[in-house]
Amino acid sequence: MSTPETTTQETETETTGHGDISVGVTTAGTSGDATASATRITPGNALRPEDIALAVSRGTAKPTEDVAEFALRLGDDALILAQRLGHWISRAPELEEDIALGNIALDQLGHARSFLSYAGGLNGKSEDELAYFRSEDEFRSVELFEQPNGDFAVTIARQFVVSYYQFELYRRLTQSADATLAGIAAKAVKEVDYHRDHSAQWVLRLALGTDESRRKMIHGFKVIWPYVDELFADDDLTARLAAAGAAVEPSSLRADFDRLTGEVLAEAELEVPQVPAALGGGRRGKHSEHLGYMLAEMQVLARQHPGASW
Amino acid sequence: MSTPETTTQETETETTGHGDISVGVTTAGTSGDATASATRITPGNALRPEDIALAVSRGTAKPTEDVAEFALRLGDDALILAQRLGHWISRAPELEEDIALGNIALDQLGHARSFLSYAGGLNGKSEDELAYFRSEDEFRSVELFEQPNGDFAVTIARQFVVSYYQFELYRRLTQSADATLAGIAAKAVKEVDYHRDHSAQWVLRLALGTDESRRKMIHGFKVIWPYVDELFADDDLTARLAAAGAAVEPSSLRADFDRLTGEVLAEAELEVPQVPAALGGGRRGKHSEHLGYMLAEMQVLARQHPGASW
Repeated sequence: MSTPETTTQETETETTGHGDISVGVTTAGTSGDATASATRITPGNALRPEDIALAVSRGTAKPTEDVAEFALRLGDDALILAQRLGHWISRAPELEEDIALGNIALDQLGHARSFLSYAGGLNGKSEDELAYFRSEDEFRSVELFEQPNGDFAVTIARQFVVSYYQFELYRRLTQSADATLAGIAAKAVKEVDYHRDHSAQWVLRLALGTDESRRKMIHGFKVIWPYVDELFADDDLTARLAAAGAAVEPSSLRADFDRLTGEVLAEAELEVPQVPAALGGGRRGKHSEHLGYMLAEMQVLARQHPGASW
Repeated sequence: MSTPETTTQETETETTGHGDISVGVTTAGTSGDATASATRITPGNALRPEDIALAVSRGTAKPTEDVAEFALRLGDDALILAQRLGHWISRAPELEEDIALGNIALDQLGHARSFLSYAGGLNGKSEDELAYFRSEDEFRSVELFEQPNGDFAVTIARQFVVSYYQFELYRRLTQSADATLAGIAAKAVKEVDYHRDHSAQWVLRLALGTDESRRKMIHGFKVIWPYVDELFADDDLTARLAAAGAAVEPSSLRADFDRLTGEVLAEAELEVPQVPAALGGGRRGKHSEHLGYMLAEMQVLARQHPGASW
């Protein structure tokens, strides 16, 4: 991209499958230093969306029914977040920040393309068919991702939770028995590590800034925190995937998530919000009122041209 | 970025100050081959937004009043376009296309940051002050850039006109007597060359695709073409800048623009739309009704926090 210092993709520094978490945290609020978590992941097994689409079309990568459903969940999460974040381009508090959020949006969109391409391999559907031609109740994203941007602090609170969750999930998926999931995660975890540092830096900046910015950061976490529990809810699918070594139970990510986010919150002199959890039926297609509007806007163009016969 | 094949910034191939235009055109509709215009520009003199801001803050780069006004015009053009394009993230007809438009938006935002940082050097204003704390009549963008996205074909028509115009303008600015303008242009022209190929490919794809896509492409150009003339209007400022060797008269770009766009339109079997030109007072702060709404959305957050005291 045109602004190396804000892109999440500039350095080739690897991030960890099982890196030094304490280092990751102590630097999270400061420099965004990528070496905060050095990795064992080799670039060689990191798969791009085109790699997935090609492997799927050649039949060399075909997900099981369970893996396809799981990929659909992660793809929908990333797709919905990308749409939310795209709104910030030229609307953030600083022009440089616009570019940072825009880059994060495009990273998430790239992850969505990979997961959806792979999920589509089960029944020969393309990433576009899955993105543009499913109804609301067919989307498998959890409610956190579709929550409105709110003010900048709400967006940062959502991004902070998302990126710490995705980092823990993806770094474990790099060890998946499913080679394609592992390859998608190997690319995504490196990018999400930058998202994690970016949001942690903003949490500290806002919480330790002016009285108003601190008040807004506290409000942002109050708004977002009810949607945290849903991220870590196990179900029959994740149980089967864990048994097969293809994924881990979401609940197994919670301890690391709580410790890592907790250390940043402590550094920011913030409490973990004590708020009741939202209902959270996203994985079963039960969404908040926000998703319908997003999908309408997202899908109208493609649906005007079925088959993308451009 | 996460998707090398869609980023406009992947290759290091240089683009031309005075390249082989015929080659540039014959490939415009096909591969996006960057070697279509090889350059004499050395990466060394290509300046990033941070370079500009630093040079300005150190006082090593200070624009004349005329150059500052000119930089403001080009910065506003790019800033307004970036906001328009950002809307497409996850809303284009293909997920891959979302990423391409998102990358173009971020490139334009980077150019805006450079031009605005330099313009601000005249009176010690930051890029953010200029972006977020000016009123509508203080913006100097021409009306083309603020035109609504419309459907995808309208967006492509706008982007096609913009990128062919910007390419001709920037490649000449690389020879500017003002070293900072030349440095900004040296970076921007390489990026805009990809934007040019991208939009030309879509013009061909839509115009030569289905009956409906062709109808939409024709409609897109009808909607956009009234705003073309304003791009090439000379005034006292550009006359003085041309005399000083800092820039060229916009009218001097028209012949190359017409020839290059004309060859793509001919390949697409499209006529240059015969439509009356819009009034076009953007350079004097007279804008269409669209800009006010855009600025309101763009500036509300920063204005809630004067001085960005986050």
